[in-house]
Amino acid sequence: MERTIYTTPQDAETAFYAALEKADLDAMMSVWADDEEIICVHPGGVRLCGVDQVRAAWRQIFASGQTLRIRLRHHQALNGVTHAVHSVFEEIAVSGATQTQNPVIATNIYMRTGNGWRMVVHHASISPAPPEPDTKRAPKTLH
Amino acid sequence: MERTIYTTPQDAETAFYAALEKADLDAMMSVWADDEEIICVHPGGVRLCGVDQVRAAWRQIFASGQTLRIRLRHHQALNGVTHAVHSVFEEIAVSGATQTQNPVIATNIYMRTGNGWRMVVHHASISPAPPEPDTKRAPKTLH
Repeated sequence: MERTIYTTPQDAETAFYAALEKADLDAMMSVWADDEEIICVHPGGVRLCGVDQVRAAWRQIFASGQTLRIRLRHHQALNGVTHAVHSVFEEIAVSGATQTQNPVIATNIYMRTGNGWRMVVHHASISPAPPEPDTKRAPKTLH
Repeated sequence: MERTIYTTPQDAETAFYAALEKADLDAMMSVWADDEEIICVHPGGVRLCGVDQVRAAWRQIFASGQTLRIRLRHHQALNGVTHAVHSVFEEIAVSGATQTQNPVIATNIYMRTGNGWRMVVHHASISPAPPEPDTKRAPKTLH
């Protein structure tokens, strides 16, 4: 399968959440670095390491058949030459669910590889409270 | 106050956990980048942004008077030129507590600044299970 080249960390992030909403396992894994060092921690979950564990967990999540709609808020970025760190609140709506849930805080880390920018870490945890209203602070890029 | 220069991400990490065990607020904050973009998520906690919020939360934690002993396990490192990502299990023993608790999964991100390596992100969450036994996989460094 020919893999998409993401030329910026933001492109990779957009593809990550698109794959999540579509429950598309191939698209999801094409965002991740093909590396035994990748790490994924789902909310309340264990630490998954390497492509096999990360793929197996996404397969299980997508097999539930639930459709998720995700709204991202309060995005912050620390973009470096070889790595980029994005922090974001995920407001997740589950199809058929009437309850709203607290947002998820996600730390997403991307690395520049020979095949463009790829995700290397996704660490997510449930926030005990909604984020404060958007402030005047704009996302910044550090070099 | 003269601040220590950490010449490697590992030096900064060692200082981070030493400050945590000593409940030393100045030492703790000397590990962090002096930047409004730093992010700290304590286990089950909200997202703290910037030096003021991060410092206030550590002050509150240290004010509890509890002494923590922390054993680190299953360390993985993705070290780049400007950023380094460390993932680790924290086995935390609280003085006076008889219950053992599940370990904490921490994603620690360091950035090379004009004043050496500094922490820019600490994202921690409780693991629902202990990690698997140490495997043959040694921590690796990617460049």
